Amino acid sequence: MPDEALTFQEMIMRLERFWADQGCLIWQPYSEKLGAGTANPATTLRVLGPEPWNVGYVEPSYRPDDGRFAENPNRMQMHTQYQVILKPDPGNPQELYLESLRAMGIDLEAHDVRFVEDNWESPALGAWGLGWEVWLDGLEITQFTYFQQAGGLDLDPVSVELTYGLERIAMFLQNVKEVWDLRWDDRHSYGDVLKTPEIEHCEYAFNVADVERVKLMYDLYEAECRAAIECGLVIPAYDYVLKCSHTFNILDTRGAVGVTERANYFRRMRDMSRTVAEAYVEQRRRLEFPFLPDDVLALRCERPAVSAPAPITQPAADLLLEIGVEELPSGDLRDGIAQLQEAANAALAEARLRHEGIAVRGTPRRIVLQVQNLVAQQTSETQEFRGPPAERAFDADGQPTKAAEGFARSKGVAVADLEVREESGGSYVYAVRRVQGDPTHLLLPDLLRNLVAGLRFRKPMRWNSSNVSFSRPLRWLVALHGDQVVPFEYAHVLSGRVSRGVRPHGSPAITITSAAAYGEAIADAGVVLDQEERQRQILAGIQSLAAAVGGRVPDDEALLEEVTNLVEQPLPLLGRFDPAYLSVPKPVLITVMKKQQRYFPVVGEAGGMLPYFITVANGADGDAELVTRGNEAVIRARYADAAYFVRDDSRRPLEAFNQRLATLTFQERLGSMLDKVRRLEKLTPAIADLLDLADEDKAFAARAAVLSKADLATTMVVEITSLQGVMGGIYALRSGEPPAVAQAIGEQYVVRPDEPLSGPGLALNLADRLDSLVGLFAVGLAPTSSADPFGLRRAALAVVENLIQAQVSLPLRQALAQAAALLPVNADDAVLDQVLGFVRDRLYGWLRDQGLPHDVVEAVLAERGDDPYRAYTAAQELARWVERPDWNDILVAYARCKRIVRPLAERYELAPQRYVEPATDELHAAWQALRPTISPDGSVDPLGQALRVLVAPINRFFDAVLVMAEEPELRAARLALVQHIAALPDGIADLSKLQGF
Amino acid sequence: MPDEALTFQEMIMRLERFWADQGCLIWQPYSEKLGAGTANPATTLRVLGPEPWNVGYVEPSYRPDDGRFAENPNRMQMHTQYQVILKPDPGNPQELYLESLRAMGIDLEAHDVRFVEDNWESPALGAWGLGWEVWLDGLEITQFTYFQQAGGLDLDPVSVELTYGLERIAMFLQNVKEVWDLRWDDRHSYGDVLKTPEIEHCEYAFNVADVERVKLMYDLYEAECRAAIECGLVIPAYDYVLKCSHTFNILDTRGAVGVTERANYFRRMRDMSRTVAEAYVEQRRRLEFPFLPDDVLALRCERPAVSAPAPITQPAADLLLEIGVEELPSGDLRDGIAQLQEAANAALAEARLRHEGIAVRGTPRRIVLQVQNLVAQQTSETQEFRGPPAERAFDADGQPTKAAEGFARSKGVAVADLEVREESGGSYVYAVRRVQGDPTHLLLPDLLRNLVAGLRFRKPMRWNSSNVSFSRPLRWLVALHGDQVVPFEYAHVLSGRVSRGVRPHGSPAITITSAAAYGEAIADAGVVLDQEERQRQILAGIQSLAAAVGGRVPDDEALLEEVTNLVEQPLPLLGRFDPAYLSVPKPVLITVMKKQQRYFPVVGEAGGMLPYFITVANGADGDAELVTRGNEAVIRARYADAAYFVRDDSRRPLEAFNQRLATLTFQERLGSMLDKVRRLEKLTPAIADLLDLADEDKAFAARAAVLSKADLATTMVVEITSLQGVMGGIYALRSGEPPAVAQAIGEQYVVRPDEPLSGPGLALNLADRLDSLVGLFAVGLAPTSSADPFGLRRAALAVVENLIQAQVSLPLRQALAQAAALLPVNADDAVLDQVLGFVRDRLYGWLRDQGLPHDVVEAVLAERGDDPYRAYTAAQELARWVERPDWNDILVAYARCKRIVRPLAERYELAPQRYVEPATDELHAAWQALRPTISPDGSVDPLGQALRVLVAPINRFFDAVLVMAEEPELRAARLALVQHIAALPDGIADLSKLQGF
Repeated sequence: MPDEALTFQEMIMRLERFWADQGCLIWQPYSEKLGAGTANPATTLRVLGPEPWNVGYVEPSYRPDDGRFAENPNRMQMHTQYQVILKPDPGNPQELYLESLRAMGIDLEAHDVRFVEDNWESPALGAWGLGWEVWLDGLEITQFTYFQQAGGLDLDPVSVELTYGLERIAMFLQNVKEVWDLRWDDRHSYGDVLKTPEIEHCEYAFNVADVERVKLMYDLYEAECRAAIECGLVIPAYDYVLKCSHTFNILDTRGAVGVTERANYFRRMRDMSRTVAEAYVEQRRRLEFPFLPDDVLALRCERPAVSAPAPITQPAADLLLEIGVEELPSGDLRDGIAQLQEAANAALAEARLRHEGIAVRGTPRRIVLQVQNLVAQQTSETQEFRGPPAERAFDADGQPTKAAEGFARSKGVAVADLEVREESGGSYVYAVRRVQGDPTHLLLPDLLRNLVAGLRFRKPMRWNSSNVSFSRPLRWLVALHGDQVVPFEYAHVLSGRVSRGVRPHGSPAITITSAAAYGEAIADAGVVLDQEERQRQILAGIQSLAAAVGGRVPDDEALLEEVTNLVEQPLPLLGRFDPAYLSVPKPVLITVMKKQQRYFPVVGEAGGMLPYFITVANGADGDAELVTRGNEAVIRARYADAAYFVRDDSRRPLEAFNQRLATLTFQERLGSMLDKVRRLEKLTPAIADLLDLADEDKAFAARAAVLSKADLATTMVVEITSLQGVMGGIYALRSGEPPAVAQAIGEQYVVRPDEPLSGPGLALNLADRLDSLVGLFAVGLAPTSSADPFGLRRAALAVVENLIQAQVSLPLRQALAQAAALLPVNADDAVLDQVLGFVRDRLYGWLRDQGLPHDVVEAVLAERGDDPYRAYTAAQELARWVERPDWNDILVAYARCKRIVRPLAERYELAPQRYVEPATDELHAAWQALRPTISPDGSVDPLGQALRVLVAPINRFFDAVLVMAEEPELRAARLALVQHIAALPDGIADLSKLQGF
Repeated sequence: MPDEALTFQEMIMRLERFWADQGCLIWQPYSEKLGAGTANPATTLRVLGPEPWNVGYVEPSYRPDDGRFAENPNRMQMHTQYQVILKPDPGNPQELYLESLRAMGIDLEAHDVRFVEDNWESPALGAWGLGWEVWLDGLEITQFTYFQQAGGLDLDPVSVELTYGLERIAMFLQNVKEVWDLRWDDRHSYGDVLKTPEIEHCEYAFNVADVERVKLMYDLYEAECRAAIECGLVIPAYDYVLKCSHTFNILDTRGAVGVTERANYFRRMRDMSRTVAEAYVEQRRRLEFPFLPDDVLALRCERPAVSAPAPITQPAADLLLEIGVEELPSGDLRDGIAQLQEAANAALAEARLRHEGIAVRGTPRRIVLQVQNLVAQQTSETQEFRGPPAERAFDADGQPTKAAEGFARSKGVAVADLEVREESGGSYVYAVRRVQGDPTHLLLPDLLRNLVAGLRFRKPMRWNSSNVSFSRPLRWLVALHGDQVVPFEYAHVLSGRVSRGVRPHGSPAITITSAAAYGEAIADAGVVLDQEERQRQILAGIQSLAAAVGGRVPDDEALLEEVTNLVEQPLPLLGRFDPAYLSVPKPVLITVMKKQQRYFPVVGEAGGMLPYFITVANGADGDAELVTRGNEAVIRARYADAAYFVRDDSRRPLEAFNQRLATLTFQERLGSMLDKVRRLEKLTPAIADLLDLADEDKAFAARAAVLSKADLATTMVVEITSLQGVMGGIYALRSGEPPAVAQAIGEQYVVRPDEPLSGPGLALNLADRLDSLVGLFAVGLAPTSSADPFGLRRAALAVVENLIQAQVSLPLRQALAQAAALLPVNADDAVLDQVLGFVRDRLYGWLRDQGLPHDVVEAVLAERGDDPYRAYTAAQELARWVERPDWNDILVAYARCKRIVRPLAERYELAPQRYVEPATDELHAAWQALRPTISPDGSVDPLGQALRVLVAPINRFFDAVLVMAEEPELRAARLALVQHIAALPDGIADLSKLQGF
């Protein structure tokens, strides 16, 4: 193959030819540095508005932070995309796409081609879409997206976007291991023409670009963009958006953009993009959308005609509904199966259609409802309606009155058919109507259509002018009752009896003769329809492959389910990777395998990684050897990448990365990431004090604070952000830091811990969050109802959960004040109140999620809102108390006290010497005995016990004594006692918030 | 044709395919906005160094100031180029190129395809090359260049660069009148996808771009370029050069760059380009030029082997030398013919080869030497050498001495053959040698080779590894003596007997049987070899075509010669243009026709333009109708352009353009163009005073100064700079200004006037020049020996010539002081001296060019160097005096006076009362009588007359009187008299500078 494979340039020419022949306009790469072909206005703008647009073009795409100084086999700051837009959806874009692969000489039968969920989003362009990565033997070769929004505007029609990664496809075709070895033409390699520029661009973006100058460029571009758009100049303005975007990428690669600042940059770019998009649509509208064909309405009326339903000839027969789709995301497949199961059961019951069982199964390309022996006829029914009393319905002569006639008419029965029935309390006329069941074939079309239409997905999408939303485009419907088609239409698809086979066979049409024949037909076609069966096959396969090399696959339900939902016909394959990569930290190896490739890792007896992975191909007939080799090449490149990062990062001790934090803005007014670290160095020990940590732990916490953000400047974390903290911990150990310090660094980002954090980890975690919360609230960046760009809700929730999980009390207000004092901006009491309220709201939600009653939570938060752990324990206890049978008495008795003193501003002194009645003395004595058992910081139970004990004395007191005596001193003494009793729950809960108070 | 013609995208795909099949690497458009495909690093950098490189790519090319808001049929700020680089020259690039036209469906036989000299230069890229515009029926469709230098570096090997104008070719193919009507694909027009962006980009670049911000961008880019190149990063640095270039173009389009400032920007860009180019070559060198084939030396040794010459069989036969070339520039053809004529004559004479006449003729593709009846044998010769005197050559016995033997041996004769001859003064031995002539065939190879090699051209070029320089590549050599080939090699071309026919026939090979048969063979092939015959045919043709529409073609020798030299077989064709364009000013119409299209204008009886033009096609067999239609389309677009400019400019009065001059920098320290105008408003009247103009003229001059630079801001002048002043005059009249003002504006740039300028015109012309001279000298920008970027030599020369032509005296020093006083910078006496010296140097040169003797000019300049006109008149008169037979006596007499007083510092009072001798009285009386006839401002003649009269009295005085008398008062009186006589030439000439003094 290698010798016959197309050169890089020939491959491009074949693609141009293919898409030109499909009616695409052939466009050129753009005159600005773009991150992707999508950013070319031939996509970003043309997908807007109603006009049809089919286009194809090459786009050299620049992503500076993907640069690896040409040391990675296929990761470069510049790679070449081929971009295709099909607008509207032609109905068979996947098939067209697969044809284009064939046009480049790819043997689809031999290889494992898969469509793996991948939802695409460009915050800078205000654009997103749903679709897939297309995998060729595990190698991502194309991004296939149904574009839903661009420039912040909904797309109608939706565009299909294909983005080919040309280098990867060429490497595959030419069977080379390094992109640089690709033959560009018959004389030159890819490296010949692009390797030196690649290294140079890397050097520039990582080490040379002057941050101040480049920032200034960004500002100038933005200003020019605004000036242009104010004059209605769409393209000039858009060119500056593109310049902003690339300039931002340079800054980012240079390590000069902090997490918070990044959000700010993105907001600015998104604003620009939206303004430009709106101006473009307006411009096209003024031109009256010239690309629209004359028969626009015809374009909209694609809805096909549905034929009449026909009855089955047997009394009952199986029912089949196969919803044929483009590859569903794993979660949507699971949800769809569950929903259909429930909805079908309910719908058949409601429709009075008897059957002998329902089953719903599914693969990525089909959700299938099978109903056994569904009857041909709806069950008949007798409806009875009570009418007027018999004496009013019939006159003395027994003749029906007007009332009877009217009743009979309204119920559609003859007067003569009215029945009289005796009931307790009198006799009434009844209209009894016997409803004959309809033939099932008349009911099924609507019923099935509603079942399909009723499915709901987390992230639905539109694709054609039906504007129906579904998980992914619905492409065929098989609906059979017995051997009869159940005719209906949905999303411009007509139901019928033609299903499709598996992708490796080219999705051949399969005619289903009857519902009962479906199972065998589809199994013959190679589809393992039942997800549990597939999962069983996979599990058995991967464990046996792992065992063959002396290892095992660790349990991972989520991954197993996802992989099960990625294939129709699983073929587990064992691949190996260079053991040299085992020196890469395990979390990195595993993250790369699972998240990026959906591979199963293989571990040895002791839990250590083995140099293997298992992938599950789709389709049993491919060339297993070939597919495995392909997947090995992919993991090799991925690991080369990771190893490169780790090697690069390990050249210096972790602390050395701190210096680069100075150029990484945290937030404009709050300073750099380094400034934040400097604050954390002080705040973390202070929090540790409040947490009452041991001295050694305090020292660890302080050291961890120093190193806390250093990994943000490492290339590994820049590349895979989710490894932040994790890499910090690993690099800390490699730099000789104490394990406790490394652990604390690793724990700083944990939100929902499986087990309590270490003391130092908790202190750092809290300090980081509190600094962000107070700081960002202080500069006016509190989340709004619709937007939380800095993830402050998550931060507040982390504070709550970590404290509760660690079972540690922390006076939040005090901690916040400590954080505020360190900030470079003013954060006054109003800000602290705001933050505290914000955290308390999270705490409220969290406690409610634990099933605690609304009023209990309110009561506790009123007193312990600034101490999550104590609030939690109090709420748990109080919840138990309010469920006690005697609680109502307790609360009522307490309420008698509380209500009477609540309006009083004055605090009265106890004056037992003035008591007159024994009931008062008795109550005082009871109070005096119980008071010391209750701690305002402590448990609810002593309080509950005390109040329970006080019920009788309280009631006796109020029965015997008039509190509001005429005589002032006497009144004061009585009120003082009641006040002290009412104050017993202070610091624990405000019982007046409880139901029944 | 239109319906079958290729779509725009299909045309591009055909070109890609064609060049890919020729072994080109197919590249992509660049990720920056480029002015041309040349700027893509695949050209600019890859042409550097020794490595082979063949590449083809599309390049959307942005030239903001070509923008016409989509109102022009084929002029846009963005057009699409297809760029091909062939390195090294494949030997037949023109033929390959013509094949590529065929690949796009162009019928080369039917159309007029021409290669018209066009030398390309990019100051910003430090690049230049020689070649042609390729014209298709008058439409420039391709730039064809042999790249000589890039980034300031000489190219070796030279690259062939083809730059196709794709829109123009497509318009031609699809036969559409407006680029917007081109079919891009089967669904969309070019306008559909590009018209709105075109208008927007125009609006942005002309009206919206913020000058300050864009200037700042330029500075940032330059700084980043330098930073990158300091780290050796070639491509990142180069990207910033490109950004600078486009940014500069925006500024320029915005009208924010003055003439002087422009030079500064270009210098900065050129510096960057050179630095980048050097770094690139260094980088490739370090990589050891990887694209070089292993047998590099073989690559260099393309020199073919030459066979042995053979004799003719007759005693004499015609000689033919045809130098076949790619299309020569007109001037080079003329020069080549003249040189070859002279050189051939001389060479044949020197070689003693008799013949019956020489003729040299030529066309753009061949220079042909024909020699009638050249003999087969060199003429024999007798050589005689005189030896020692006979008495020393023979001893007393008559035997030859050693001396005789030595002499005979040295001359190659036997001693016995020495002859003794008697001469006046003695008798000597002679050696007489009879040299037999060589056969001609042995001499001709070197002789012809040297003739070819001896041709010199103004702008020669290299093209292949022979590194021979010639006007254009030499592609074949026919060299025949009789029917025998004269074998030699030059520039890797072997001589032979195969000539080539005309381009319209595809340049077919024509075998020439013998030199005598050449004339008929070449005439049969359609070539009109004789340039005078071609010129006669053209002249007759164009006059008869013009007469047919009632007009005539005004004489224009230069144009006629150029057109004659553009064709091998002339076919004059009459085209018409829309009479509506006659409203465009005539200078514009004519400039466009002649300079841009080499068309002959047609005028009516009264000299007014008629709506016709005449073009001369190459080749008589084309489709005349088709070709005419094509040329009409071209002039339509050109005139639409010009009309657009004039219309646009005429919307406002001329003075209104002044406001934009504020953003047009003249020179950083000297302010804007508007600042310059403000100075000229004051300086012009002051100069007018010095010129002693009438009051009315002074007022006109002042008004002209106000409007003088306004046209620089008009679009017409921005487009065709050579119309500056001309348009100012036209627009001034249209704005209602007096004709004298309009004339003065038009005269301000005149350097070498045919007739004297008007008074106001002269005043303005001088003021403008003096302001520039003093100003630029004051800020340290005086020309250096190698560079005169601001054209100050030309400015100084204009001052000289205009004053002399106008016959007006002007005290330059005073005028310069006036100019200096108005400047925003300090210009002290030293600067004025410097400027005056600079002007005086031009004046010296100019006077010498008039044939005036060196000493005369020196003598006059010593006294009148600051008044060119008076210097000129004085020099003319003085030159006549110094040629008089009695001049020596006059000068000697005068010198006696001058020499004695020259060393004296003291000025003595005349004291006739002290005279003693009559000779003194006589001399005094003569002086007294003559003195009033001489004016220091006046003519030389009275001085000459006076000095002549004084000869006798002076001589008598010195013979009789000892001037240096002992007695001081007597000495003083005598010296006083001599001093006064010596001072007579003061203000006219310093006679001590004259030869013979």
